Amino acid sequence: MDGEGDSEKRKRMSCGIYISCPPQIKSALETCFQCGYHFVVTQLTHPNYARELLENPPPAIGRTDRILKGSEWSRLVVGELNKTIDVDSEVEHIREQSKALLLQELGLASHLSIPAVLLTLENPVNTQLARIIYDKILSGYDYGIWVTVPMVHPSRFCPLADEKHESWQWWDDFRTYCHYDNRIGVVLEMPDINHMPTTAEVDRWIGEPVKALVVPASLFLLNQYNKPVLPKAHQELIKRFMTIDVQYIIKSDTEMDITHYQGYLNFLGKKLYTNDTTSEFVQGCEDYLQNPLQPLTEHLEANIYEVFEKDQVKYDTYQNAIYKALETWPKDSKVDPVVMVVGAGRGPLVQAVLNVSYTLHRKVKVYAVEKNPYAVNTLMDRNRNEWNSKVTLVYCDMRTYEPPEKADILVSELLGSFGDNELSPECLDGAQRFLKKTGISIPYIYTSFIAPIQSLKIFTEIKRNRTLDKTLQSIYETPYVVHLANYYQIAPPQELFSFTHPNWSKRINNQRYKKLSFSCSQTCVLTGFAGFFDTFLYEDVNLSIHPETHSPDMVSWFPIVFPLQNPVHVKEGTKIEISFWRAESPDKVWYEWCLESPVKQSIKNPHGRSYFIKKH
Amino acid sequence: MDGEGDSEKRKRMSCGIYISCPPQIKSALETCFQCGYHFVVTQLTHPNYARELLENPPPAIGRTDRILKGSEWSRLVVGELNKTIDVDSEVEHIREQSKALLLQELGLASHLSIPAVLLTLENPVNTQLARIIYDKILSGYDYGIWVTVPMVHPSRFCPLADEKHESWQWWDDFRTYCHYDNRIGVVLEMPDINHMPTTAEVDRWIGEPVKALVVPASLFLLNQYNKPVLPKAHQELIKRFMTIDVQYIIKSDTEMDITHYQGYLNFLGKKLYTNDTTSEFVQGCEDYLQNPLQPLTEHLEANIYEVFEKDQVKYDTYQNAIYKALETWPKDSKVDPVVMVVGAGRGPLVQAVLNVSYTLHRKVKVYAVEKNPYAVNTLMDRNRNEWNSKVTLVYCDMRTYEPPEKADILVSELLGSFGDNELSPECLDGAQRFLKKTGISIPYIYTSFIAPIQSLKIFTEIKRNRTLDKTLQSIYETPYVVHLANYYQIAPPQELFSFTHPNWSKRINNQRYKKLSFSCSQTCVLTGFAGFFDTFLYEDVNLSIHPETHSPDMVSWFPIVFPLQNPVHVKEGTKIEISFWRAESPDKVWYEWCLESPVKQSIKNPHGRSYFIKKH
Repeated sequence: MDGEGDSEKRKRMSCGIYISCPPQIKSALETCFQCGYHFVVTQLTHPNYARELLENPPPAIGRTDRILKGSEWSRLVVGELNKTIDVDSEVEHIREQSKALLLQELGLASHLSIPAVLLTLENPVNTQLARIIYDKILSGYDYGIWVTVPMVHPSRFCPLADEKHESWQWWDDFRTYCHYDNRIGVVLEMPDINHMPTTAEVDRWIGEPVKALVVPASLFLLNQYNKPVLPKAHQELIKRFMTIDVQYIIKSDTEMDITHYQGYLNFLGKKLYTNDTTSEFVQGCEDYLQNPLQPLTEHLEANIYEVFEKDQVKYDTYQNAIYKALETWPKDSKVDPVVMVVGAGRGPLVQAVLNVSYTLHRKVKVYAVEKNPYAVNTLMDRNRNEWNSKVTLVYCDMRTYEPPEKADILVSELLGSFGDNELSPECLDGAQRFLKKTGISIPYIYTSFIAPIQSLKIFTEIKRNRTLDKTLQSIYETPYVVHLANYYQIAPPQELFSFTHPNWSKRINNQRYKKLSFSCSQTCVLTGFAGFFDTFLYEDVNLSIHPETHSPDMVSWFPIVFPLQNPVHVKEGTKIEISFWRAESPDKVWYEWCLESPVKQSIKNPHGRSYFIKKH
Repeated sequence: MDGEGDSEKRKRMSCGIYISCPPQIKSALETCFQCGYHFVVTQLTHPNYARELLENPPPAIGRTDRILKGSEWSRLVVGELNKTIDVDSEVEHIREQSKALLLQELGLASHLSIPAVLLTLENPVNTQLARIIYDKILSGYDYGIWVTVPMVHPSRFCPLADEKHESWQWWDDFRTYCHYDNRIGVVLEMPDINHMPTTAEVDRWIGEPVKALVVPASLFLLNQYNKPVLPKAHQELIKRFMTIDVQYIIKSDTEMDITHYQGYLNFLGKKLYTNDTTSEFVQGCEDYLQNPLQPLTEHLEANIYEVFEKDQVKYDTYQNAIYKALETWPKDSKVDPVVMVVGAGRGPLVQAVLNVSYTLHRKVKVYAVEKNPYAVNTLMDRNRNEWNSKVTLVYCDMRTYEPPEKADILVSELLGSFGDNELSPECLDGAQRFLKKTGISIPYIYTSFIAPIQSLKIFTEIKRNRTLDKTLQSIYETPYVVHLANYYQIAPPQELFSFTHPNWSKRINNQRYKKLSFSCSQTCVLTGFAGFFDTFLYEDVNLSIHPETHSPDMVSWFPIVFPLQNPVHVKEGTKIEISFWRAESPDKVWYEWCLESPVKQSIKNPHGRSYFIKKH
């Protein structure tokens, strides 16, 4: 169903429908699929079967499994647990009866191999329920658990309620019992127009593994053509959730033709889809973990160069910076400026320099220094065929190159997602040997930033991706480059480390330490820190992936994430404090980080034991 | 390209073409794809570039990477290494020059991210070549290595040759150096009509990871329409290789229109495809590892029952056996025979008994005993709606059931791929408490068989599938159920253990031991033992998965494989001896096995430490 070959730009809206106790499940299913739905949510057993389970086996369970094909059960049906189940009841016989019924229904779900079981939390305390579910998914039951809660608990709006419940807290307790297992997701019931969540609450839900939104048919209004539509506020809510991979469950009590709801959601999928360059580039990369590059010790591959070279925004900005730098060169000077592109790759910055030279009618002496022989091969070809052999190609590491003359301008693109994490400082400190004392570096400064985040998705992905040669400790002491989608940024990013070039200090020190303090405005779960950077190339010409100053449409860098091995619950109003180091030894550079508050933990990645960047 | 939506039954023939030094690779590629080819094999660098590599870097390497898109290099081009490379030369400067060139070409292959590198073995000794390749694939180079050898070495047919070379041996040495790494495959050059391999040799190649067959255009004859066709002998050869997943590489020196070769291979894909029931059922399962079921302690799921129930051959044979057994019942007897189906599942054998009862006009008292409550639920439904409540349903383990009367016939289907491996002996020994002393068991005997096999595919699949909770030792001390395709059976299967029912011995002993000896008629690599079984249900009515007596079109059981952790080289004419045990303790049953010859090894799976079948 995913390969619809639809070239039209839109978000696919996977849409299910809730059917309560259909007399004939087979024909109910067929009707739903004819109406365009992708799956149904329904009870596995008729509620009437939920009776004396503790006596006289064998109990009749309900429908026979043969009314649907195995492939239908396993692809199309989400099973709702019997709503009378209350294993956390204070009344013993209700607890026992509930447990027997729960075990039977979970067993039946496994027997039918359905993809997911849906249950609804009705009370704050769900300890027994969580234990039984966790026990079963660890024993090999192989379906998802969809835990349903209201997006906002109605008690908040009820002046008479003794206690104001937080449904996020119910969910958080439940999944914490189950150690954030990635088979357990949350399903959110959309509220009516008078009971909407705050923006911050929605943001926090976006940081959760939301499997589906329940859309009650009662939320729909009729438009001028008598067709059901959602109010603006609900459309905005759906638009927020479209950034993560949620499904929709229509819950209708009326006899209204159900086709329209599904059709309307499909329409929203088109209407609300933001089709900018960025989203086109990065679609499908959401929350995918990449290991940071080590371009100093591992040659980049052709297809990586190819992807980088496609970022027009980045190279236009570089060209603009080079333009501004060369523009200041005296027009009547007989000496041509010497521009050296260090780490030239396959030549995009060389091209930018030549473009500026052409535009300014200013001859420029261009060097391209590159240590990857396969990239040099491409540079040789371009120099011959495109650049009229005007460029001096140098196959050498910039840290050891001994040029015949010094440069006026050093141009480089050595920055990683965290600024300095691909060892731009070390490389440029080496390369400035052949920069004139009056020369400039493009870029001349870059700064890293971090922000605390909640992302259970990334927490579980790290575990899921573990290979046989890695320990649990080492995978959580490693940063990952991630296009963040399913996450909640707990507080705004703060500045961490800065580096400037050229650096004419007598003793250059690229080690750093800083302690930052963030305030948490809403109870949540801290799972790690997202890292960003910005850089100034020349004067005010800058590039940034800082969320608040992100260069529009630039796609070259995703954020970097420094994870924590155990999520930490953080209460509203408390501080998140972190110590962060950049450390080095003769052969490597690494980061260490340490949560100081709300709980003090051990230092992560000491001596770069799990992650480091090699210098050689 | 795989999803061609072609409902016609045929084998997809992935077909590449070898192009030597195309002047323009881009247009050569386009021509090939227009002619229907799926990939090309060509040199990564022009042979003329293979010159003084050891001096004056940077060397020109060849074409620039930008003549193709990254996605074209990575999907469509297999790179042939320069044929002058001879890192095993006895001449030092050739060795050094070759090594520099090899490292450059392997680096370039990685730079371009091509899917595979093709190299040809020209000499028996390839130690240095293997070491460099193994070093590189372990260092992270991420392509396949296609090692090309002739299917039969031409020296065999040359009366003047000093030495008769075995190309299989060259390949075997090479991949043994590289510890059978699954990234290394073999490519076989098809011989001409006068130099065909023996059947045994082809069988052995089928047990290798063959990536492709090279089909020289010179093998083709012209038919009456002046179109190229392959001789019958070559068609037969291709048909053998169609059982495994090989690709084809056309190698043409002539100016003949290359379209026809590809078209002809596609035609062969249709013509030679054997479309029987079995292949339809099992397609896509080839060499896929399944864990043996544990139906005694883990309830089977609905979709497993559903698959089993589709095997018409099996249930027809059962029905035939039940018919023959009931036929002997005196026609005028006033007492109806009591038939108990133990382990009734969702009722296919119950249905078979009722069918016989109907056909023979003989009333039968039917019991169905089943311990899986979800299957019992289905039986209740069928009894009510299909069987007119004639069947006595019993929700109970057959080993503890206390029936109101004794049975004349006990019908069961408790056999696994190895006969007794799902504990049929233990279950029926328990159930015979309620069988009359004159009563019969269907089945009444079953026997396991084993045969030594070579299958590098399964050897590497076991390693590839290892999960984080398993040790290397434990995964090779576990048997797997596998639809064997990419394997070579080294010698015919021999009988291992037999069990008969009912068993009225005073002390029933289901432990077993046997030592078997197989002779190896052709040098090969032993990677494990394949297990089979046959059973007699009643008199001569039997079911078998023994390769020589396999019940036609029966699909319920695949063979079982007992692996070895390290492949063992076995010379032609030597003996393969193995000791095999069936052992038990109060709560479990397990097998142990031990290679005795050609090398004596330790006992595998002692005390069932890695694999066992639980009794409770």
